[in-house]
Amino acid sequence: MQIKEFIQQCQLRVDAALEQCLPAENLPASRLCEAIRYGVFNGGKRVRPVLLYATAQTLNCPLDICDNAACAVELIHAYSLIHDDLPAMDDDDLRRGKPTCHIAFDEATAILAGDAMQAMAFEVLIAATNSPVTPANQLAMVRELAHASGAAGMAAGQAVDLVSTGKTLSLQELERMHRLKTGALISASVMLGALASDRATPEQLSALRTYSAAVGLAFQIKDDILDVEGDTHTLGKPQGSDEALNKATYTSILGLEAARELAITQHRSAIDALSPFGTEADVLRDLSSYIVERNN
Amino acid sequence: MQIKEFIQQCQLRVDAALEQCLPAENLPASRLCEAIRYGVFNGGKRVRPVLLYATAQTLNCPLDICDNAACAVELIHAYSLIHDDLPAMDDDDLRRGKPTCHIAFDEATAILAGDAMQAMAFEVLIAATNSPVTPANQLAMVRELAHASGAAGMAAGQAVDLVSTGKTLSLQELERMHRLKTGALISASVMLGALASDRATPEQLSALRTYSAAVGLAFQIKDDILDVEGDTHTLGKPQGSDEALNKATYTSILGLEAARELAITQHRSAIDALSPFGTEADVLRDLSSYIVERNN
Repeated sequence: MQIKEFIQQCQLRVDAALEQCLPAENLPASRLCEAIRYGVFNGGKRVRPVLLYATAQTLNCPLDICDNAACAVELIHAYSLIHDDLPAMDDDDLRRGKPTCHIAFDEATAILAGDAMQAMAFEVLIAATNSPVTPANQLAMVRELAHASGAAGMAAGQAVDLVSTGKTLSLQELERMHRLKTGALISASVMLGALASDRATPEQLSALRTYSAAVGLAFQIKDDILDVEGDTHTLGKPQGSDEALNKATYTSILGLEAARELAITQHRSAIDALSPFGTEADVLRDLSSYIVERNN
Repeated sequence: MQIKEFIQQCQLRVDAALEQCLPAENLPASRLCEAIRYGVFNGGKRVRPVLLYATAQTLNCPLDICDNAACAVELIHAYSLIHDDLPAMDDDDLRRGKPTCHIAFDEATAILAGDAMQAMAFEVLIAATNSPVTPANQLAMVRELAHASGAAGMAAGQAVDLVSTGKTLSLQELERMHRLKTGALISASVMLGALASDRATPEQLSALRTYSAAVGLAFQIKDDILDVEGDTHTLGKPQGSDEALNKATYTSILGLEAARELAITQHRSAIDALSPFGTEADVLRDLSSYIVERNN
């Protein structure tokens, strides 16, 4: 199977699973539920679920065992975008070509939708009472996701991003920010796939963590490159929007050419990290290539 | 031991435990950590941890086993207050006589602090890797807390509260809102105490759930009464602030006298619910009395 087919298959899988776990319309606060659905089904690429499924497949774990975890990482990601876009944060009106949640609904609803989505992520992660995943591993998954989302992970990265806006960052400071802001949840996605499989050796877990850190950075560097190179239509947001917000990016610090080289260096690190694996990890290798070669 | 002493002991316990689990200052985003500490150590009454410990004591469970769960429910409560106070929500500048988090820091930091605190709640809930609580019960605790916090619980209650502001509510609609907004997390606190004990029979669990629902409503009704009766100094917020926001309250719908009677009716329901228990549940009975008799 080509990697594009695998990606598409995973996107369909997680969308169907999200459809299952999202609150029915007869829940108490119907407008809140609409806003949650709006934030979840927003044309996202489902990068984190795809990485999670690819890790599970590498470890020969049936993908359906991972559906709940895939929903959980996507719910955390989607909630973080809703809160990121708020007027007090990045104040974005558009996301992937559509009005952001607080524009389509209102600010209070957008805040609450994000809050509810975070809770839902933890609920769905362990919702399958007949899960074949051991309770110990399910607890490890909760721990991993909570740690990656909070004050030592994604939320910290957001906070660092906010205080960095308008400042000159070193390459090291930029990398540190992205390891938290996007890297922590991307790593958690890979680790959740491994924990769901219940089969990874400590050596494999360590290799996968190194892989995920490199892929996370490659993804972010490529995002910065696309923000300069891409056009508004393909990106779904105004091209050059990071520049307009006066945010430090890999391209602003390194220039376009050196940023491209760094993305390839990270891709190579990701491939190197997978050396304990044979061909069964080709899907992870292909994903890393895809991440640095994509156009949007 | 008098109930006031028990409450004070629990407050000290959970504050010490929160001190342990709150992010050290050397974490990546120091301003975020300061805001989290500000939101957590804000003079709160720790009602939810007290109910959790009281339930554990009723079931003869050592209180130290419950410290993580007590921190978790308080972190969820404290984050919800930070988000509630935001300009897009209730737009409150004062909470318990001190500037609210977005006033003391800024709006973006307040949003992120709340987000990080929710993640931290789930992380700390199951942080004790050597916990005597069975993994199955720990998972049930995650499920209970997540469900109570999200789109079928607290966040839904907030959303209903927002769309209800300025509208005339029936008593039934008001009760439904409060069952979600404050009741769900109060119930979860009692259930977490029971699950941590690992000793409750299904009959006892069911009795405790009924107790917690009644206590939650009694607490809310008393809050509304105090908002009318109390003075600004004792309450730490402007007296009559709900009225100023044009929010439906038990006193605005029923009048002060009937609201007092309803609080006592709920208190009696709480006591009745505890009939499967003997004197070991006196601490829960005394707490219910305390809740309807308190002055702040």
